[in-house]
Amino acid sequence: MAFEFEVIATDGNARAGILHTPHGDIPTPIFAPVGTLATVKAVPPRDLEELNASLVLSNTYHLFLRPGDELVHDMGGLHNFMRWNGPILTDSGGFQVFSLTDINKIDEDGVTFKSHLDGSMKRLTPEVSMKIQQNLGADIIMAFDHCPPPKDRATVEQAVDRTHRWLERCREAHPDDETQALFGIVQGGIYPDLREKSAKFVTNIDLKGYAIGGLAVGETKPEMYATLDHTMPYMPNEKPRYLMGVGDPDDLVEAIMRGIDIFDCVIPTRLARHGAAFTHDGRINLRNAKFKMQEEPIDSELDNYATNFSRGYIRHLVVAKELLAHYLISIHNIDFLISHTHKMRQAIIDGRLQEYADTFLSRYLQSDSTDS
Amino acid sequence: MAFEFEVIATDGNARAGILHTPHGDIPTPIFAPVGTLATVKAVPPRDLEELNASLVLSNTYHLFLRPGDELVHDMGGLHNFMRWNGPILTDSGGFQVFSLTDINKIDEDGVTFKSHLDGSMKRLTPEVSMKIQQNLGADIIMAFDHCPPPKDRATVEQAVDRTHRWLERCREAHPDDETQALFGIVQGGIYPDLREKSAKFVTNIDLKGYAIGGLAVGETKPEMYATLDHTMPYMPNEKPRYLMGVGDPDDLVEAIMRGIDIFDCVIPTRLARHGAAFTHDGRINLRNAKFKMQEEPIDSELDNYATNFSRGYIRHLVVAKELLAHYLISIHNIDFLISHTHKMRQAIIDGRLQEYADTFLSRYLQSDSTDS
Repeated sequence: MAFEFEVIATDGNARAGILHTPHGDIPTPIFAPVGTLATVKAVPPRDLEELNASLVLSNTYHLFLRPGDELVHDMGGLHNFMRWNGPILTDSGGFQVFSLTDINKIDEDGVTFKSHLDGSMKRLTPEVSMKIQQNLGADIIMAFDHCPPPKDRATVEQAVDRTHRWLERCREAHPDDETQALFGIVQGGIYPDLREKSAKFVTNIDLKGYAIGGLAVGETKPEMYATLDHTMPYMPNEKPRYLMGVGDPDDLVEAIMRGIDIFDCVIPTRLARHGAAFTHDGRINLRNAKFKMQEEPIDSELDNYATNFSRGYIRHLVVAKELLAHYLISIHNIDFLISHTHKMRQAIIDGRLQEYADTFLSRYLQSDSTDS
Repeated sequence: MAFEFEVIATDGNARAGILHTPHGDIPTPIFAPVGTLATVKAVPPRDLEELNASLVLSNTYHLFLRPGDELVHDMGGLHNFMRWNGPILTDSGGFQVFSLTDINKIDEDGVTFKSHLDGSMKRLTPEVSMKIQQNLGADIIMAFDHCPPPKDRATVEQAVDRTHRWLERCREAHPDDETQALFGIVQGGIYPDLREKSAKFVTNIDLKGYAIGGLAVGETKPEMYATLDHTMPYMPNEKPRYLMGVGDPDDLVEAIMRGIDIFDCVIPTRLARHGAAFTHDGRINLRNAKFKMQEEPIDSELDNYATNFSRGYIRHLVVAKELLAHYLISIHNIDFLISHTHKMRQAIIDGRLQEYADTFLSRYLQSDSTDS
């Protein structure tokens, strides 16, 4: 049944599950690469399949502005437009209207903002966001929320209440049927009482899944983990839990151990465009001259197409600004994060997640990550 | 036997053949995509295999400057460095030291030039070019030549004589053995008598193949074809004939009908970076708004990975400056040219090249190619 979520194993607070969608099953925990403009930057869809990507995220804000959600709808929806036949999730635009625009004005009804592309004034409301996301046709869509900086209590408090009112309007405007599921978003910054209030309100509305928003937007890692500790007790066990915008390998460990099932982040492709790559021994920047003559792959513990190439060659591509560098490092970084979540899934099933976490973190965090 | 060339069929002056190399057989006529810096821009080597590329060209000038031919040698040579195990040809640097540098000074011994990368002064001579190309380790390497603008008779005449003296020095400096073949280059601009003189001199030296250089560098297409008409009678039948730097689909037809076997050009990948694509009905630029909603592929007569995507989607990628646009259009354009040469090869074998040429040119040239 579409959007049914099965928990098949638990290990402490962590769970291994399966989320069924109209475009296939998502094994959880899972990392979803981001295809902002209906393309995961530099990575063809068939490579995503090869990397066992099972969920791709795309951005409502960006697609609304270009090429336009109606065009995508007329071209058969996102799946057909980008030729990705697996599950897709779209965010609501709520985060980008504030983070990407110079001018934005919020009122009870919605947000008016200046397009970062052509300077024209545009408007998003809960109802418009639902309509756009219906046009895009993702399997999972997100409620339109207000996501302020996480450490200004008065603003966060207002944002929580507004997010709740907007969620009710989204629920009203969207059928939330077998073809497309609506997820609600818990806000509340780093404030335990606001997170509790928001989680209770949001999860009291019967939806197919719930997200935690407003993290990884300026707070420290300990603050993020503490906020998860405060919030997770209120997130229902029987529904998938999605931590928005998080993708650091160490954060995936910490969040999965606290019961998160779904992640997305631009980090693998963004790092790639700067020549930076994940390895089990920490992040490296392939621009560094020390890699010049290294015959080994970026990380010999992975097995993907990029593993065929030497660090020395990829360094050459990075230094020469060759497009192939983006492709190879993006593939590598996406594989690193997806494999990482797959390994944690298996560790949960085997009851040895703590062991995996200790081993992984001791190696990954020991390195001098100022390198990248 | 390495570098043996078999002509398996002829049709008029055109021939279908096989050139054997240490890294595999090249069916001729063939178009070779260019991997300037040891990468065909935006195209992974496994995609080149899928496109039936059988020869890849790389540039001595660029690799000499970055990452350096000694590094490539120490990394196991070009084939190993770029993970392309098929045949490779390197040019000599002779063309680039003039076309890409602000400051260059030619003397009888060689050329001193200012690197376009860091402004440092560098020097290439016939002997240095041979040494670099040995370090790079391509299957086929080119003699160091002087390639001036094609319509200044006095300069061209001097360049022909210098190219001949330099060819003798290249021949002296290079073993031209079973592992690496040296091809000579005929110069002479658009002057029939100079072409005749050069062709006679160059082909009088026993080499595994001969190239025609100094075309597609500023002369008109009729001048290029006329120059081929004047030159080809002096190019031995039993050796492969390589027309350097030519890649327009109509030029491939004209040159193959005159007996050329090998081509290379940056045009498929360069056009791709500008959003332009070959089609059987002429060149198109996918940035054009008229493609916005088109569900059909760039050219439905081709069958490659890019054919899975709509013109509308690729137009979106081009407009949004997405990296995937380079990949998809490059694949398409390379496939277009390689398939084009493969079809001409079959037409030669079937004795219907003229028919293929007439049909192809009448469609390809009827279009308004100002579009791209």
